Amino acid sequence: ADTMRRQIREMHTLTSRPFGVNLVLDFPQEERLAVCLEERVPIISFFWRDPSHLVSRAKEGGAIVMHTVGSAADARRAVDAGVDVIVAQGWEAGGHVRGSVATMPLVPAVVDAVSPVPVVAAGGIADGRGLAAALALGAAGAWIGTRFLASNEAAIHPRYRERILQANEADTIYLDNLFDIRWPNAPHRTLRNQTVQTWETTGRPASGKRPGEGEVIGTSKSVGPIVRYQSYTPGADSEGDIDAMSLWAGQSVGLVSKTQFAAEIVREIAEQADSILRQLP
Amino acid sequence: ADTMRRQIREMHTLTSRPFGVNLVLDFPQEERLAVCLEERVPIISFFWRDPSHLVSRAKEGGAIVMHTVGSAADARRAVDAGVDVIVAQGWEAGGHVRGSVATMPLVPAVVDAVSPVPVVAAGGIADGRGLAAALALGAAGAWIGTRFLASNEAAIHPRYRERILQANEADTIYLDNLFDIRWPNAPHRTLRNQTVQTWETTGRPASGKRPGEGEVIGTSKSVGPIVRYQSYTPGADSEGDIDAMSLWAGQSVGLVSKTQFAAEIVREIAEQADSILRQLP
Repeated sequence: ADTMRRQIREMHTLTSRPFGVNLVLDFPQEERLAVCLEERVPIISFFWRDPSHLVSRAKEGGAIVMHTVGSAADARRAVDAGVDVIVAQGWEAGGHVRGSVATMPLVPAVVDAVSPVPVVAAGGIADGRGLAAALALGAAGAWIGTRFLASNEAAIHPRYRERILQANEADTIYLDNLFDIRWPNAPHRTLRNQTVQTWETTGRPASGKRPGEGEVIGTSKSVGPIVRYQSYTPGADSEGDIDAMSLWAGQSVGLVSKTQFAAEIVREIAEQADSILRQLP
Repeated sequence: ADTMRRQIREMHTLTSRPFGVNLVLDFPQEERLAVCLEERVPIISFFWRDPSHLVSRAKEGGAIVMHTVGSAADARRAVDAGVDVIVAQGWEAGGHVRGSVATMPLVPAVVDAVSPVPVVAAGGIADGRGLAAALALGAAGAWIGTRFLASNEAAIHPRYRERILQANEADTIYLDNLFDIRWPNAPHRTLRNQTVQTWETTGRPASGKRPGEGEVIGTSKSVGPIVRYQSYTPGADSEGDIDAMSLWAGQSVGLVSKTQFAAEIVREIAEQADSILRQLP
């Protein structure tokens, strides 16, 4: 929580624009939420499980509350709980994936379910074409992850960034619980790597019975030893067998081919979407 | 082939506009292709496997050739083989599904791979929002299936149509080879039904070892007896346990809630897409 407080204060010195903190509800978040509200974080984004018990506290603390869902039914429940903005996350998203419906059919279904509550489209979006498509589907905006992993600002390991830049749209895999150490039972999408391939060629054994369970494959200054199958974002402060770690990536990874500054990525995406929507129909 | 010839001739009497015939290349199609070309079918659409050996024959016969792919690499191969129009089919599509990349990230990747060859987006599209999104992604048009299953013209069983109208976006499942009798090893998407649920609760046994293998669950005038796990589109001429059959549907099924004439569906989708693109940004 101290690290978080320091990071939030730094953010406030870097921008006067709104920013958000994402809190994953498979872990206790009461203390972090309190820090966020004390430090006037403008947007609290909840992910995974039912956020009902924290929504009113966040709103009373002055934050706008977002929640990420994978179905129209979950979206309705979130709105009933007071959530201000719904994030509709498609199955093609990278990292942890809440549902099994792809962005294209999910977003209109969620919009129909919660309109006029704003819906942000997540999953499969990496450029202005995706943003324009999201807006056409009825979304108020797009949530973009993978493209920003390739930004200069993302504090990921250079080898992970290299893998992102090289991968094409068919190089990811959706996994029910492969990288489940430290975060069990949470489906996710990563690049196919040697850990995935070995698990597949050995017949997809269940968690606890996989080749190399418990094997330390690297270390991170902030996290400590990293074991095989750990849910871990390979950080700039890590070393070891980066290629064997959980290389989170969405299917939009095929559209990501260069490293840029985050501001440049945002500008490029907005301009491309604008240009597409002006030219169509 | 005689039935097909009769149907093509009927189509020519019904319209002077272009129409297509879809040929699935997991089955011998030389004879059907010859009939199509003799009868001047304007568009030949190939699906599944490499179409290279048939493309030049179709083009020399005067047809425009389309091929459905699930990745940018497959799209490039198809264009190299002379295909005129690429159909990029996302994982959220209903019926048999060629790839595992969703429409949102697939279409731009395919467009980048084959431009200026036209790309048609398939999978997850059921209304004008989806068509507008497809165009924003760089597609030249949209391929729509599930919505037309609910049309008055679709010769499907009324109970199957009812299931389509009732289902929401989360009610489908992608299956590697569950409904594999008569068409093995071809992944597909259907509504979850009792056949799917029983197979899941019995531990997803392999083909040949599933509960009720070989059991006749219905009959069709045109096809004969229908067994459990058969790849079969429940037709208006079928009877039996329709609910237990392969109820093909894409994830856009959540956007399909009424029966309409096909012409009305086309008009409504085009008008909605047009209106969205005029209002954005």
